[in-house]
Amino acid sequence: MINKTTYYPLSEVPHYKVHGRTVPGVCPLPLFFNGSAVEINVSGSELWIDIEVGYHIHEIWITCEVNNELMSRQMLMPGRYTLCLFRGMSPDAVKNVRFTRELQAMTEDEDCFLLIHGLQTDGSFHPVPRKKYTLEFVGDSITSGEGTYGAREDTDWIPMYMGYSRNYAKMVSEALNADAYLISQGGWGVLSSWDANPHCNIPSRYEMLCGLCRGPVNEKLGAFEPYDFTGRKIDALIVNLGTNDASAFAQPAWSDPVTGGTFEQRLNEDGTFQEDDLNRFKEAVINFLKMLRHNNPQAHIVWCYGMLGYDLSLAINDAINQYTAQTKDHNVIFLQLPDTTTETVGSHAHPGEKSHRRAAQVIIEYLQKYLTF
Amino acid sequence: MINKTTYYPLSEVPHYKVHGRTVPGVCPLPLFFNGSAVEINVSGSELWIDIEVGYHIHEIWITCEVNNELMSRQMLMPGRYTLCLFRGMSPDAVKNVRFTRELQAMTEDEDCFLLIHGLQTDGSFHPVPRKKYTLEFVGDSITSGEGTYGAREDTDWIPMYMGYSRNYAKMVSEALNADAYLISQGGWGVLSSWDANPHCNIPSRYEMLCGLCRGPVNEKLGAFEPYDFTGRKIDALIVNLGTNDASAFAQPAWSDPVTGGTFEQRLNEDGTFQEDDLNRFKEAVINFLKMLRHNNPQAHIVWCYGMLGYDLSLAINDAINQYTAQTKDHNVIFLQLPDTTTETVGSHAHPGEKSHRRAAQVIIEYLQKYLTF
Amino acid sequence: MINKTTYYPLSEVPHYKVHGRTVPGVCPLPLFFNGSAVEINVSGSELWIDIEVGYHIHEIWITCEVNNELMSRQMLMPGRYTLCLFRGMSPDAVKNVRFTRELQAMTEDEDCFLLIHGLQTDGSFHPVPRKKYTLEFVGDSITSGEGTYGAREDTDWIPMYMGYSRNYAKMVSEALNADAYLISQGGWGVLSSWDANPHCNIPSRYEMLCGLCRGPVNEKLGAFEPYDFTGRKIDALIVNLGTNDASAFAQPAWSDPVTGGTFEQRLNEDGTFQEDDLNRFKEAVINFLKMLRHNNPQAHIVWCYGMLGYDLSLAINDAINQYTAQTKDHNVIFLQLPDTTTETVGSHAHPGEKSHRRAAQVIIEYLQKYLTF
Amino acid sequence: MINKTTYYPLSEVPHYKVHGRTVPGVCPLPLFFNGSAVEINVSGSELWIDIEVGYHIHEIWITCEVNNELMSRQMLMPGRYTLCLFRGMSPDAVKNVRFTRELQAMTEDEDCFLLIHGLQTDGSFHPVPRKKYTLEFVGDSITSGEGTYGAREDTDWIPMYMGYSRNYAKMVSEALNADAYLISQGGWGVLSSWDANPHCNIPSRYEMLCGLCRGPVNEKLGAFEPYDFTGRKIDALIVNLGTNDASAFAQPAWSDPVTGGTFEQRLNEDGTFQEDDLNRFKEAVINFLKMLRHNNPQAHIVWCYGMLGYDLSLAINDAINQYTAQTKDHNVIFLQLPDTTTETVGSHAHPGEKSHRRAAQVIIEYLQKYLTF
Repeated sequence: MINKTTYYPLSEVPHYKVHGRTVPGVCPLPLFFNGSAVEINVSGSELWIDIEVGYHIHEIWITCEVNNELMSRQMLMPGRYTLCLFRGMSPDAVKNVRFTRELQAMTEDEDCFLLIHGLQTDGSFHPVPRKKYTLEFVGDSITSGEGTYGAREDTDWIPMYMGYSRNYAKMVSEALNADAYLISQGGWGVLSSWDANPHCNIPSRYEMLCGLCRGPVNEKLGAFEPYDFTGRKIDALIVNLGTNDASAFAQPAWSDPVTGGTFEQRLNEDGTFQEDDLNRFKEAVINFLKMLRHNNPQAHIVWCYGMLGYDLSLAINDAINQYTAQTKDHNVIFLQLPDTTTETVGSHAHPGEKSHRRAAQVIIEYLQKYLTF
Repeated sequence: MINKTTYYPLSEVPHYKVHGRTVPGVCPLPLFFNGSAVEINVSGSELWIDIEVGYHIHEIWITCEVNNELMSRQMLMPGRYTLCLFRGMSPDAVKNVRFTRELQAMTEDEDCFLLIHGLQTDGSFHPVPRKKYTLEFVGDSITSGEGTYGAREDTDWIPMYMGYSRNYAKMVSEALNADAYLISQGGWGVLSSWDANPHCNIPSRYEMLCGLCRGPVNEKLGAFEPYDFTGRKIDALIVNLGTNDASAFAQPAWSDPVTGGTFEQRLNEDGTFQEDDLNRFKEAVINFLKMLRHNNPQAHIVWCYGMLGYDLSLAINDAINQYTAQTKDHNVIFLQLPDTTTETVGSHAHPGEKSHRRAAQVIIEYLQKYLTF
Repeated sequence: MINKTTYYPLSEVPHYKVHGRTVPGVCPLPLFFNGSAVEINVSGSELWIDIEVGYHIHEIWITCEVNNELMSRQMLMPGRYTLCLFRGMSPDAVKNVRFTRELQAMTEDEDCFLLIHGLQTDGSFHPVPRKKYTLEFVGDSITSGEGTYGAREDTDWIPMYMGYSRNYAKMVSEALNADAYLISQGGWGVLSSWDANPHCNIPSRYEMLCGLCRGPVNEKLGAFEPYDFTGRKIDALIVNLGTNDASAFAQPAWSDPVTGGTFEQRLNEDGTFQEDDLNRFKEAVINFLKMLRHNNPQAHIVWCYGMLGYDLSLAINDAINQYTAQTKDHNVIFLQLPDTTTETVGSHAHPGEKSHRRAAQVIIEYLQKYLTF
Repeated sequence: MINKTTYYPLSEVPHYKVHGRTVPGVCPLPLFFNGSAVEINVSGSELWIDIEVGYHIHEIWITCEVNNELMSRQMLMPGRYTLCLFRGMSPDAVKNVRFTRELQAMTEDEDCFLLIHGLQTDGSFHPVPRKKYTLEFVGDSITSGEGTYGAREDTDWIPMYMGYSRNYAKMVSEALNADAYLISQGGWGVLSSWDANPHCNIPSRYEMLCGLCRGPVNEKLGAFEPYDFTGRKIDALIVNLGTNDASAFAQPAWSDPVTGGTFEQRLNEDGTFQEDDLNRFKEAVINFLKMLRHNNPQAHIVWCYGMLGYDLSLAINDAINQYTAQTKDHNVIFLQLPDTTTETVGSHAHPGEKSHRRAAQVIIEYLQKYLTF
């Protein structure tokens, strides 16, 4: 079956496009984030991809799209092997193929990685143009697509229920004809995680290539190196954070297993947020906005919030207002996304595909008005 | 045709319910606002309503619902006469009938009024229970339903294109099983009108029975008397203001035709809001919140905004945050409503029925979570 | 208010279009059928219509559309008077206005009529072009829009619950850019009425101008004269009949109150249709097809069926097959419409607006493929 | 990773359910048809399936559902190996897992097969109850789900674009809480294939276990043995055939490559069907109905048609009417399905998921009324 095809190490593939943060030209190519992908335009009757997969706990899932339509979604076994992405097709037609990582970067599994080594085909490669706009999405489990797969009663925290393929970030990017970068981690916030762990905050990892993974394999892949922001120009930067910071207020103090120190976000007796702790959160938002602006000077920053409750809406707005007062940077707006309902919820009490669709629609409509160049 | 029926002055109708602000027990009953209505449960084969209508410029429109379904929407001619609301029905069944004013209170037509004098029927009247919740909607042209009727190309500012019947306030009230009060005026804001007239602000009229009309007839009907807020208990107070305040920033200075004085909301050269003017708007929001709270001590205040753009979203949030800091009143939230698009727009560049439906859905879902008693 | 306007008897209105069967040029103009209308393109700030209304039992309802959007739906009182259709509009713009009868022709009320005498305006009249296609709809209560208004629990058989404005015939015509003729009567069938009255069949009245009304007034208006089919050229003729013929099989024998004779459509003991009676129905379909073809030589005949059950689907197909075998006329097809469900039902157990929307969609899609000229 | 798990040959799995035609108790278990599946209720943290796959041209695709939600869809490589269906789950919870063949039986690839050898898990197996109703779907490419995957411009005839997972048969079965048997083959009809090959007709294969495959492997699996219809009791039998028979009328004569004989379905010069050829088609329908009835004495037979045009609608109705006249069997109805439009089309000019959804809705609503036991 595999005859008359030629094997191309990725470094010898004349045309391909990488989605998501990466080091230009690297081979093998690591796909660190959900939504990270390799995309090609290729003729030929069949196409195979040479991949290397590793994990200890959380298995990798991927999707393959042909001509922008989902063909497969599957769990990958560990090891190095080839997967067939299509076969039996008219050899002359050029097909667009996108091989995409579904699973978020996994801070909890240091052996988790996905590498693209090469491609094999009886066809030839054609240029893959950049899209009109470039977006970055920064978020938590919502942006990791947790809950977009699985039944409503499912409550396991497993890769199978996460994904890029039914994610608002994908919907927004496609509707706007945009390329997208994603960086997200379930359970993490701007200041702390959902259970008040202050180490689990996105800002502390934002400036690395991929700070949301661990271990020597990923270190060797360059994941913890400073990310070179000059290689891209983001038109709109969608931040969807705050949900886990709100949860932290409802949790007991977090104890550092190493130092024994604790961290806590407290409620007053009347259920309102304790002022000092709320200010600490606002400060984190302000500082993160400064970091985002530093690294993305021209990006229109859209802070989205609401898909799992509006609790910190006023606080986020206050932080944005303070940031703007301090910096005179008006290129930031707040966009409230519709809360998830019993109609739109997915598995594990997270937004389902319908909720992502509704949220995407609000973002799409906003950006369609804004992005008029 | 009108035989065997009995005429009842409204004061002698044993059971009826009035929607909207009114003086309890008054006869004839003025319907001042869009959404103001008389509702009855009545048996009999036919029902007529004895009304009196006046206007100089802007004609009154009404709707009639039978068993909660729209039956008619029509323009009223001036004068006193009876209208048939139903006929030929099974006499024993009790029908719910609601006769509703479509048109907002009209500050621009001092002769504009609609009075209910009585009812005529061969049936009998039955109690009309209050709904589980009570809401008040305070707004501008959006809450007056401008644009919910009419073709997209229609740009006349006329009563025909305004209405309660396709209004988000109606949708929210029905979905939540709530009675509703509406007070709204097209073109008006919290601080000024769309063209920066500082006299056209809702707060200056909120505490009157109906401060949004003029003239001796309405004065005689008590419209300008202080409204007795103790006669009702609002569960949630939905404010949908700010849209015209945003417009004012794009308009030239307004000149008072009497004093020659001017009023202006200015933009900076870079298109951002002039800080002093923006603060003046925020101050107006803060003061209005204090007024609303003073008159509705227990109401959950939901400040909605966004159906015609998000320009003042951050400023409104800042004002709410300042209000809460000053008063320690946390019973106020901000709810962003989806902006109107080319898909959802109605006539006169205003939100169409689809936009109202989307906005209503966001409010409904929020209040369904909140109103759990 | 009515000043500077000019009154035009309809016969002196230079441009207007009549919808529905009529006698060309007649003045006053009777609107016999639901969907019958007068349509004009007119400038000016206001427009009034001079009408005459009569009925004994069943009141007339009308709608007014401005620029193809519904503005009003209302019950008409008997007498001759003027109604204002719009006022306060920009005088230069040309508005499209359609004044439409909602109520079907009423065989049960011999005094029921609606006449247009003239128009009054400060504007001028402009030509109203014919649409690209011309359709005729022939039906029963479904085509009379019974159930498209009213609550689901409403079971009165009254004009208020009937209408053209939410009718599949209107939806189809608008989607196809077509002018439409309607002829329909609630309870009637091809062979007999729902209760097996053999006099209440549409074919016996089809060839009159309007055979579905009675009385000296309508006679004087020419209703019972042979209709001149040469004045129009129907592109597609949608027949939606059979529903009442199916009901007749579940009813006891009908007794003629005059002659004492009876008529019955019988079921076998196993619930299937008695063969002779079914053949009688098929014969009626075949003969009606011949009548339709005779009068509309070029029309594509689409026999629709199913909105209230599929019981006679096979029988109607058999009749069409027999008709085609006899006549070699292949220009007839059968189109099954989706049955009404608890989700889509309206008042009086009739198809609601949603059911009409679904049925319309099937017809629209079929005719869009067919009408390619 | 695979530790503490136990391997069970399928014959030793205490509880599992097979979907689709099979030989009871066979091990390994062949999945012959699209929709054929093995379903289990299993506890444990992980589950693996031991499969054997073969094909020469057309590769097998499968899906895996967990708790009735699609988790994966993927192409299978040839060989014998295990696939992981889930891992990392809460061990105590019982999960419902269904492993389903996407691809139709493949007459064009004699080496094409999919076998289930066993399961491996750390959990235990629980009974899988039968559903309330049992359905059989008999069809062509529509029932094989061709076009439900792939972009609209895709025209290759390949397994990737076919499937059960977006198929109306799946939608109907799930909505009605029914188990389903499918038997379908793209391009085939009641009398002949789309290109008039009279050997490619479903009736000639219906009475075998799986007559829609070929070759010694499948022969050895028992595919060509008479199917034992007594092992099941079909409540409703949905036939969706006629589309390819209609196409045959537009094709040139088919020549038998072996005998040189020809077969042709002819049009008259005016585009109507040649009467003798049409009668031959009707005869095939009548005979197939007799075969279906013979093998499924109690089944309600619903002949569906229309998703790719209504051309043979009258002819099919004629055949059903003749069948009923001959046999007095009234337990057959005709159900027209909405034609596919440019809005609802999928790849290869076949019905897309939206078209399947619409068709399913019509069938669901019909059967919900019919299946009242």
